[in-house]
Amino acid sequence: MKPQVVTFLIKCPDQKGLVAKITSFFFEKGFNILSCQQYVNAIENTYFMRVRLNADGTNISKETLEASFLELATPLKFDWSVNYSDKKQNIAIMVSHTSHNLYDLLERSKEGRLDCNVSMIISNHDKLRPIAEMFKIPFYHLPVTKETKQEQEAQVAQLLDVNEVDLVIMARYMQILSADFINRYPEKIINIHHSFLPAFQGANPYKKAYERGVKLIGATAHYATVDLDEGPIIEQDVKPVTHESTPTTLKRIGADIEKLVLARAVKNHLNHQIIVSGNRAIVFPEAGE
Amino acid sequence: MKPQVVTFLIKCPDQKGLVAKITSFFFEKGFNILSCQQYVNAIENTYFMRVRLNADGTNISKETLEASFLELATPLKFDWSVNYSDKKQNIAIMVSHTSHNLYDLLERSKEGRLDCNVSMIISNHDKLRPIAEMFKIPFYHLPVTKETKQEQEAQVAQLLDVNEVDLVIMARYMQILSADFINRYPEKIINIHHSFLPAFQGANPYKKAYERGVKLIGATAHYATVDLDEGPIIEQDVKPVTHESTPTTLKRIGADIEKLVLARAVKNHLNHQIIVSGNRAIVFPEAGE
Amino acid sequence: MKPQVVTFLIKCPDQKGLVAKITSFFFEKGFNILSCQQYVNAIENTYFMRVRLNADGTNISKETLEASFLELATPLKFDWSVNYSDKKQNIAIMVSHTSHNLYDLLERSKEGRLDCNVSMIISNHDKLRPIAEMFKIPFYHLPVTKETKQEQEAQVAQLLDVNEVDLVIMARYMQILSADFINRYPEKIINIHHSFLPAFQGANPYKKAYERGVKLIGATAHYATVDLDEGPIIEQDVKPVTHESTPTTLKRIGADIEKLVLARAVKNHLNHQIIVSGNRAIVFPEAGE
Amino acid sequence: MKPQVVTFLIKCPDQKGLVAKITSFFFEKGFNILSCQQYVNAIENTYFMRVRLNADGTNISKETLEASFLELATPLKFDWSVNYSDKKQNIAIMVSHTSHNLYDLLERSKEGRLDCNVSMIISNHDKLRPIAEMFKIPFYHLPVTKETKQEQEAQVAQLLDVNEVDLVIMARYMQILSADFINRYPEKIINIHHSFLPAFQGANPYKKAYERGVKLIGATAHYATVDLDEGPIIEQDVKPVTHESTPTTLKRIGADIEKLVLARAVKNHLNHQIIVSGNRAIVFPEAGE
Repeated sequence: MKPQVVTFLIKCPDQKGLVAKITSFFFEKGFNILSCQQYVNAIENTYFMRVRLNADGTNISKETLEASFLELATPLKFDWSVNYSDKKQNIAIMVSHTSHNLYDLLERSKEGRLDCNVSMIISNHDKLRPIAEMFKIPFYHLPVTKETKQEQEAQVAQLLDVNEVDLVIMARYMQILSADFINRYPEKIINIHHSFLPAFQGANPYKKAYERGVKLIGATAHYATVDLDEGPIIEQDVKPVTHESTPTTLKRIGADIEKLVLARAVKNHLNHQIIVSGNRAIVFPEAGE
Repeated sequence: MKPQVVTFLIKCPDQKGLVAKITSFFFEKGFNILSCQQYVNAIENTYFMRVRLNADGTNISKETLEASFLELATPLKFDWSVNYSDKKQNIAIMVSHTSHNLYDLLERSKEGRLDCNVSMIISNHDKLRPIAEMFKIPFYHLPVTKETKQEQEAQVAQLLDVNEVDLVIMARYMQILSADFINRYPEKIINIHHSFLPAFQGANPYKKAYERGVKLIGATAHYATVDLDEGPIIEQDVKPVTHESTPTTLKRIGADIEKLVLARAVKNHLNHQIIVSGNRAIVFPEAGE
Repeated sequence: MKPQVVTFLIKCPDQKGLVAKITSFFFEKGFNILSCQQYVNAIENTYFMRVRLNADGTNISKETLEASFLELATPLKFDWSVNYSDKKQNIAIMVSHTSHNLYDLLERSKEGRLDCNVSMIISNHDKLRPIAEMFKIPFYHLPVTKETKQEQEAQVAQLLDVNEVDLVIMARYMQILSADFINRYPEKIINIHHSFLPAFQGANPYKKAYERGVKLIGATAHYATVDLDEGPIIEQDVKPVTHESTPTTLKRIGADIEKLVLARAVKNHLNHQIIVSGNRAIVFPEAGE
Repeated sequence: MKPQVVTFLIKCPDQKGLVAKITSFFFEKGFNILSCQQYVNAIENTYFMRVRLNADGTNISKETLEASFLELATPLKFDWSVNYSDKKQNIAIMVSHTSHNLYDLLERSKEGRLDCNVSMIISNHDKLRPIAEMFKIPFYHLPVTKETKQEQEAQVAQLLDVNEVDLVIMARYMQILSADFINRYPEKIINIHHSFLPAFQGANPYKKAYERGVKLIGATAHYATVDLDEGPIIEQDVKPVTHESTPTTLKRIGADIEKLVLARAVKNHLNHQIIVSGNRAIVFPEAGE
């Protein structure tokens, strides 16, 4: 294998000796363990591990590594995945009218602060095309109505599949995706919701926050699931506000939170820091990376 | 009037010239304006003001001041109140089993960081009596069942009224007060809810927070109203948590947030920084106080 | 005067009746007071006020207003300024190699979240020219060496003056400006320092933060003064970090803080929310704006 | 060994296979690994590990465990320690005039939120004795002058040693301890400094913070070292403040930060989450504990 970082994500029933068995496996194969993070959910008796390996000292091929690991994984009932740093991930960004998250993701990707290729921007409106052009990213304007929803989603899916998109980011795409579409990309769609979920689910969260008179507003990035705004939460943040804030100023203050929350969630996903378990996202912190 | 600070809280329909009229009134009466804070709600066309006056240079009596102010207030449709710093407020603390908020309020009051007399502690359990004894505060154990609720609340009300209690603090009092009781003390009961409202209303918020996998937990201090957990929010705060947090650790982390949030809300109330408008609490910041 | 918002900033010795006198003045001239914020520094016996007026109902000219106000201001020893919302301010952004603050300011200005014209970008390197071109902003590459510093600063000053620049933003411009240059633009140059000042003044703050093992890193926006990193602080923020952070990750985490801190400071300045007093910046919060 | 939690803290030169070797060791001895946290400092090529073991399934004695572990540790150059949950730690609290940290630590310890025995309170003043009496903790009033410093410290040391104190907490003890004293208790003395170090080292940090016009104030808990305010930082936090804050209000706002920061640092120490390396404290987060 060429010099690179290999990241394993593992979920399995908890049992004695797991760390020892897994780390011994990688040690024997000649890897240097860069970091080894684990989490035990004692309530559900489940074990989670993220291991990052340096492949510098090994000649093992990806195929052999994975075949060998499968022999360890099967009896221990691992649900696992492996990722190699020589594979750059492709992302697609879906937007409607709001530009702040789009700018932020494009800037981070262009400046190397998000390690990915932005394959395309898809929108149900043409409004944000100039931003795509500034950053030289293909822009697909696919309008949608109740009648054309199925057809439009098919077009989106084709674009994603043909371009081998690894992650879809709903950067304030103000359409509800169908269950069919969402189930096609499990844990591959990240949405940003402009409130501190589960508070203010659904539409107009800033207006609701004003009316409720909250003293903090927030944003939540989560994996899209069929139940709207109910998917596993990856990242949340809030900012203090006062009675002076109107729905308009809440929206403006919130925009900055949305940008940071979405960018961190996307980075965590691209960096293979997340394991989903039921409706909860285990998000390992960066390990000196 | 003897040297002291006088605080007016005013709410009225917005109109031209309000600041000028009000501040001229106090200037002419010989007061020095220590601070003058205002808030205009342009959506509801309402004006709010908090004025703090230094009474050092005036000989005017409280009665004359209030009678004169009434002449200004009536045509301008003021909803107003006035408070004098020579009147120390009496508070009652209601608790059940949980001690952290109680300790915190008692310590702050004892050390002069909350400007009030703690008149009594009322509990439906006897468990926290030793803390009351440590701090030498009268403790009333008034058990309550569904059947005796009306009677128990009558006992509580009598205690509050006889002792001229100005503010009731529900410091994790795990009983729902009746509408009759709550309506008897409008904007005079502060409750601490152990979540970031409106998320996780009702019972067991830390368990719900765990199950939803949120990345921040919080607490909310609000005025008690008939609709449970729906009263005007005075103060909120949150703290980041991770997937490692169990319901038990969330509870422990949350306890520290609850203490700070409740203490700040109580201080804001005692310091006459709050005007309630509908379901929103206008909370003026301290002005160099 | 045409319909617009007029903002007065006032600093003067504290004395009885100031609010009444000032607000009565504006009321009599026919203005509606949108907000009136004050701050009394009791230690230095100084009074500060920010008044925002709606000019809708007045026919008074700017000249007459200012002449009349001067009559009020002179005997009361006001240090004051007035700003009109029909005058859009011009800003110049100075950069070296680092792009994140530049992108952020350009995006906010383009999307109408910073109310100003970006007149130009000035850099001692040519590296960031493509960003200027993306956003169609004039870019001036003015290299500087110890020998050419005086001459280069003269070129910069000429550019600023010819283009009537109101505010200079040092968005990670890694050069120390001369005292002559700085004194030419008092309270007109905002710098972002990548640490929580006064911790880690000078060069390489992220490296120093790593070595000191701090658990929070931050950024500070301040007015540039002759004493480097000692100017009045406008805005600061921090973010928790752990022992896992290397100087490189601190730099990356810090970049997000720098962006928010600088953007907020610039908005506060453009919005006339700041009065400088000695080495302290009085920053009034937005008043429902 | 009786059922309990055993915690190992390990520091050593980084090398291949460490996780595998260490976790295999414990697995073979029959322990269940509750959590295994590691940190690699790539700059210094050093490896750190915290392992928590459940001793339920083992009959091994403490002596045998430690002797066996030494055989693993010696060739790999481990700097290590082991702690057993059946050993409750003794703490001593040193104070002068300020009570808020003292109350907080006593309350947490009394209510079981800090797992330790408070063996004594030592003060150079008699002022806080009533608090010690409320909580029924021995109080030693040991006044100190420049002349008696050596003698007083000897008395303190004797008290600590006779009572087998494991941790000394300087909870606003306003005396500088001698190098002799500090070196006697390496990584066994925690101090709270009332600023965000390294900003505002030395005396009167709130006054300095006011004068510098900072927009956040903070507190820092650190191990005491001979260089005052330079010891390894365990915990820090800050709170936003405005120009309205006077040195007095900063002090009051700061008190709440000091309490939380010191309590968290003490909990981290008592819970064996900290490894010191040079001037940096590696603070592992709780692992579902």
